[in-house]
Amino acid sequence: MSEMFTVLPPAEALKILLDQLPPLTRSETIATAEALGRTLAEKLLAPQALPAFPRCTMDGYAVRAEDTFGATEQMPAYLDVVGEMPMGCASQLAVGLSQAAVVYTGGMVPAGADAVVMVERTQKMDESGIEVLRSVASGENVIEVGEDVMEGEQLFAAGHTLRPQDLGGLLALGITRVCVSAQPRVAIISTGDEIVAPELTPGPGQIRDINSYTIAALVARAGGVALPCGIIKDDYPLLVGAARAALESADVLVISAGSSVSTRDLSAEVINSLGKPGVLIHGLALKPGKPTILGVCDGKPVIGLPGNPVSAMVVAGLFLVPVLGHLLRLTTPASQRRVTATLTHNISSVPGREDYVPVGLAERDGALWAEPVFGKSNLIYTLVRSDGMLRVPLNSSGLYRGEQVVVELF
Amino acid sequence: MSEMFTVLPPAEALKILLDQLPPLTRSETIATAEALGRTLAEKLLAPQALPAFPRCTMDGYAVRAEDTFGATEQMPAYLDVVGEMPMGCASQLAVGLSQAAVVYTGGMVPAGADAVVMVERTQKMDESGIEVLRSVASGENVIEVGEDVMEGEQLFAAGHTLRPQDLGGLLALGITRVCVSAQPRVAIISTGDEIVAPELTPGPGQIRDINSYTIAALVARAGGVALPCGIIKDDYPLLVGAARAALESADVLVISAGSSVSTRDLSAEVINSLGKPGVLIHGLALKPGKPTILGVCDGKPVIGLPGNPVSAMVVAGLFLVPVLGHLLRLTTPASQRRVTATLTHNISSVPGREDYVPVGLAERDGALWAEPVFGKSNLIYTLVRSDGMLRVPLNSSGLYRGEQVVVELF
Repeated sequence: MSEMFTVLPPAEALKILLDQLPPLTRSETIATAEALGRTLAEKLLAPQALPAFPRCTMDGYAVRAEDTFGATEQMPAYLDVVGEMPMGCASQLAVGLSQAAVVYTGGMVPAGADAVVMVERTQKMDESGIEVLRSVASGENVIEVGEDVMEGEQLFAAGHTLRPQDLGGLLALGITRVCVSAQPRVAIISTGDEIVAPELTPGPGQIRDINSYTIAALVARAGGVALPCGIIKDDYPLLVGAARAALESADVLVISAGSSVSTRDLSAEVINSLGKPGVLIHGLALKPGKPTILGVCDGKPVIGLPGNPVSAMVVAGLFLVPVLGHLLRLTTPASQRRVTATLTHNISSVPGREDYVPVGLAERDGALWAEPVFGKSNLIYTLVRSDGMLRVPLNSSGLYRGEQVVVELF
Repeated sequence: MSEMFTVLPPAEALKILLDQLPPLTRSETIATAEALGRTLAEKLLAPQALPAFPRCTMDGYAVRAEDTFGATEQMPAYLDVVGEMPMGCASQLAVGLSQAAVVYTGGMVPAGADAVVMVERTQKMDESGIEVLRSVASGENVIEVGEDVMEGEQLFAAGHTLRPQDLGGLLALGITRVCVSAQPRVAIISTGDEIVAPELTPGPGQIRDINSYTIAALVARAGGVALPCGIIKDDYPLLVGAARAALESADVLVISAGSSVSTRDLSAEVINSLGKPGVLIHGLALKPGKPTILGVCDGKPVIGLPGNPVSAMVVAGLFLVPVLGHLLRLTTPASQRRVTATLTHNISSVPGREDYVPVGLAERDGALWAEPVFGKSNLIYTLVRSDGMLRVPLNSSGLYRGEQVVVELF
């Protein structure tokens, strides 16, 4: 077990990798309405206050609050209705002493008024008079200018990933175009003499390529653009040529290694030939995923994934996704991809190694349960049958049935 | 408070709506590699076993397990190495009594062998002989034919939404095209005399359209296609014309109402004119979102959203997203968009009404905390400043600081 002391835990390895990587500086300006899921390249300030005018939050009467003080059902306040505030256009209407104006939810509060009485709290007396049956405080049922956002206030930091409500918030302020970080381009090479394209019928001993597609899908989800470069035979000159060409047009290179030790060593050699410093880390205290290679070649990250499809996905989740987040300068917390659940079975592990165990999630009796999906780590369908991955911490010898555990969702 | 007894809780209202809606039957066949996030229109069975041949999970020697029984470092088993199993091509190599063959991780197990000894558990004696230092059981370090998936086994039910690993699982079996449900088309009309397009400078009393864009983004996230139909004035003939045209080319119609009571009533009239049965539900035991309208017009769902942007998003999350899921026959559990967190402040509520409170999430001391973002429900930036929505159940009078709560993520 001495190997455990010569390989790094995943978190330390990631830090070593990220410390060598500057964020990407390419950006583009696109329509805000089409920016869902994109990441802001710069911070944004409010160009104006929101709302830009005081707005009513109820249908009713705009009044001077002090004219209603002390009003009750027994002792109502009598007000003169001086007009109706139209929706969406200018009006000279003003509310003076003992006056009121008809207003609608979302409409402008007329000049002179500082509160709105709900229509349900009034009684109509005649053509022009109402009784107010309850007092209102100044500002009641009114949204003040700038109550949502003040002019000049910071709306978002650089690195914020835009969600539906964020698009609404930007468009409300007339910000119809935004400067977002360019999507990192991730070249993906699959190697292995036994790998064939999925559309082919594999011969004896051959299997179809999985990793090119699972990794491309993870890249798309993480805000990058996948550039699949096909399947390359386990041959040093062929691989170096393909890797060099791929890295030229990409920001990140992923090499899904052949599965045997010799071909994994080939990946390391290839990465060392692509630029300085080359391989930073070869091997991790991680299961599955021990034979991972992490490198930087002339400023660009290169990741050598284990060939087995489960390890490849675990390692891509632990390293490639954070690398893309780092390149994009993401500020969105990672907690958004996790749920807490109760473990249904004991899981054993080895201290000194981080284990990832695929689990299914099920709701029973109002609680969320995490059930391990056991299977050899090479089986892609163990992942298909799972909802997420459970992490067994580095120094744990296992987790117990009934424990609350954190599941990273796929 | 008698109104509480005349309006339905959201879950009952949703059931009434869904019970009247048949799922969509339109489907399309697309490349599996491009099907991330799409929903299968039919169940899929494995056309072949995976793996299709017995595979080694280690670099080492393929052997007949019984030839190693009793082997120890002190009493190794001696085996003749009869060749090397090449990766990815056919071989006549077979392993007989007291024989072994060199094999690599992921390669085929040669005929006659039923287990693999890790190379670390052997010692090379001469050109053609090895010592095996530990016994292996039959099947050890071998993946059997069909161990991942059996031929004919169901891979996915109809309604499954494809994730990265699912694409890998399909392509591993040569399923390069899949039949997926067509994306539901959701027409979105914004009404309100005060609403202008975001690219315009609002005049006095005018505000920019938010709901068309937040709802379109939610639709895209939920697997639909948004068809924005622009802003229509609060005028019955104009609205009926626009709504009828929109519904003809769409599967779902969303009308974001003007914010005053009169214009919300206009939405209900419009929905009643579009087809039978028309409005099913008008008003919910829900805050924000009480003035919601749910209808079905000649088999198509029509949702009247409150005009205020926060209510509109809450109601779209509670009704539009499940409607799209229903149309797509989604089987993916909703639990995937939730996290459990500890509440930082007391929240008061009114029994008989479901409340949704925007919360920010923060990790502190290894735990996830949900902090309410207070603000009037019309303020879009209360959502921008939040990570999700906390539900205060129908019959609760509030939630207490320190309670474990479930947060629905945006």
